[in-house]
Amino acid sequence: MKFIHTADWHLGKLVHGIYMTEEQRVILNQFVQLVEEEKPDAVIIAGDLYDRSVPPTDAVELLDEVLYSINVELQTPILAISGNHDSAERLSFGSSWYKNSQFYMQGKLTNDFQPIRLNGANFYLIPYAEPGIVRELLDDPSIHSHDEAMKSVIGRIEEGLNTSEPNVFIGHAFVLGGKTTESERMLSVGGSGCVSQEYFEPFSYTALGHLHSPDAIHHDRIRYSGSLLKYSFSEAKQKKQVLIVEMDDKGNVQIETKSLVPKRDMRELEGYMDELLDASFYTKQNVEDYLKITLLDEDAIIDPMGKLRQIYPNVLHLERKIEQKDLKEKRLFQSMKSQEKNELLLFKEFYREVTTAQFTEEKEKWLASMIDEVKRESLIK
Amino acid sequence: MKFIHTADWHLGKLVHGIYMTEEQRVILNQFVQLVEEEKPDAVIIAGDLYDRSVPPTDAVELLDEVLYSINVELQTPILAISGNHDSAERLSFGSSWYKNSQFYMQGKLTNDFQPIRLNGANFYLIPYAEPGIVRELLDDPSIHSHDEAMKSVIGRIEEGLNTSEPNVFIGHAFVLGGKTTESERMLSVGGSGCVSQEYFEPFSYTALGHLHSPDAIHHDRIRYSGSLLKYSFSEAKQKKQVLIVEMDDKGNVQIETKSLVPKRDMRELEGYMDELLDASFYTKQNVEDYLKITLLDEDAIIDPMGKLRQIYPNVLHLERKIEQKDLKEKRLFQSMKSQEKNELLLFKEFYREVTTAQFTEEKEKWLASMIDEVKRESLIK
Repeated sequence: MKFIHTADWHLGKLVHGIYMTEEQRVILNQFVQLVEEEKPDAVIIAGDLYDRSVPPTDAVELLDEVLYSINVELQTPILAISGNHDSAERLSFGSSWYKNSQFYMQGKLTNDFQPIRLNGANFYLIPYAEPGIVRELLDDPSIHSHDEAMKSVIGRIEEGLNTSEPNVFIGHAFVLGGKTTESERMLSVGGSGCVSQEYFEPFSYTALGHLHSPDAIHHDRIRYSGSLLKYSFSEAKQKKQVLIVEMDDKGNVQIETKSLVPKRDMRELEGYMDELLDASFYTKQNVEDYLKITLLDEDAIIDPMGKLRQIYPNVLHLERKIEQKDLKEKRLFQSMKSQEKNELLLFKEFYREVTTAQFTEEKEKWLASMIDEVKRESLIK
Repeated sequence: MKFIHTADWHLGKLVHGIYMTEEQRVILNQFVQLVEEEKPDAVIIAGDLYDRSVPPTDAVELLDEVLYSINVELQTPILAISGNHDSAERLSFGSSWYKNSQFYMQGKLTNDFQPIRLNGANFYLIPYAEPGIVRELLDDPSIHSHDEAMKSVIGRIEEGLNTSEPNVFIGHAFVLGGKTTESERMLSVGGSGCVSQEYFEPFSYTALGHLHSPDAIHHDRIRYSGSLLKYSFSEAKQKKQVLIVEMDDKGNVQIETKSLVPKRDMRELEGYMDELLDASFYTKQNVEDYLKITLLDEDAIIDPMGKLRQIYPNVLHLERKIEQKDLKEKRLFQSMKSQEKNELLLFKEFYREVTTAQFTEEKEKWLASMIDEVKRESLIK
């Protein structure tokens, strides 16, 4: 059988204040066309369909359209799970109806661990779940980390695993292995979020989502597809792709990669203002790309962003080489000053950056009263 | 054919700070049981399934369960539209799949105006839509009010209407007629939100949602079912019900009402503290009900709410008769003072009270910067 493995669509994502929905529509149209050409027996989406638990409505409409094209119009089964950015409950709505047309949407982890059977293969759909949820669900008080949770879940799967048939695991997790970047290594030292790659050995193929780089793990049967698009400049050098997996009756897999071409690439440029504004330079490239530009000039330049945007309309970020060493502090200070954000909004942005939880009204009220209190106290002093 | 007409479930509603989801679960279980007993050919839900565009996740799960029971387990077709409290786009997600099992969810108004045919009858599903949306959709610049919008929509339906068959209109609108309350009359004077009842004459039956009282209109073929539960003390004296409609081949209808029994009623009590705390009084009633209590005592009473809640745990609102004339100002002042809300939160609450629009992040930022500015100016003075 043949299936396509993709993940981390992050529909509704904002990158540097710009909604990616139109970019996502372009790339998903290509994806639908690929499904039409390849005629796979299934499409796997390994979590993070949306970028947040309550995505904007145009992202909701885009997902509905794309899944309809694949599942109903092209009559291709879909196997999807929720990731840490999705709301398990919201994604689950309606899934009882979807399965009638072989669209399997596993929003919440359940403890039956029965596979979806397609063309003689078994697909285990394991959505992202916090260790606490798994601990409660499996009634196993020893679970305190993602690693322990995954070990237990796979243990439960193995109780019913028919090893004479091909078995595919679909998950959304931070699986260790292969080349790790600086940030991944830090997490691995902390240990809390990571999952050992060895647990997935019983499966013919493991289709992962979560890490955005398709090279995040080097293994012949355990793979990340990577994200649909580049979603930050740290991904600028990655090659985004989907995986086409051919699996025989014995579970042997052959993997082919297919690149999709975004309307606008996301990349970094470095140079002197004069060079960058020189036609002999910019006519050789797609000036519509999303750019992070690092200026090498040491002299003061009046309105550099305005000048650059006349040629490159989608400059998202501008840096000066000379400033880089104290850039972080400066940026925070500037953003606080120039945008006149109050403390509540600043904290909300910070909270959104560092957690995946919702900043609820209750939390907001609590924080607002806390800020008020601090301000009152500082006035008294 | 036989169908059940209900509306205004408002799942996820907060009443005086208390989530109604568990009450809603109890009453919807009764509703599902009624469907099981009555075996109708369809269930109509005329809008406001949710109380807001992004309902809490347990409301999402409750709706999913209830609709699944009715549509899949009891194999009963569902005809549902979105109301002004729902998000048309979010409710629409998945509707292409639902219709395979005769669950018709019309989230957004479309301009095809084709009916759903069931047992030889035609059902026109017209979700709530702002006049501006209808103006654009029908490309009719003359539409500026809900009345004009409805007139145009029904005009378009009539172009294709087969009057030799029974035709049912399902809508979510403020239709004038019958007994109007003070607040409804005010709106009618303003005129913007109201729709004339005469437009619905071509239909054998009109199943309406929006007004919470089943008596909001007096007509033999144009009816509100009323809301599922009492959602404010202004509804305390209403009798909540669903309508069971028998319709023959010629479109003649016979309507029966069925009451559902809430776990806790919502009602008003008036009396002296001594009376209310007297066992001979309170043992004759369901002390668990949601209560608005008006105390007649003129003397000061220490912690009246605490005393009352020892007997009546669900007192939601307490008034003193003597205070009533200047109550409104007092309440606002108290709520500002005692809860120490800041201006931003206060305005958000006010905004939610008077509009159905979302108080977006953009609006919040704008308001926050405005408040900051005013504060700064007042400091300068």
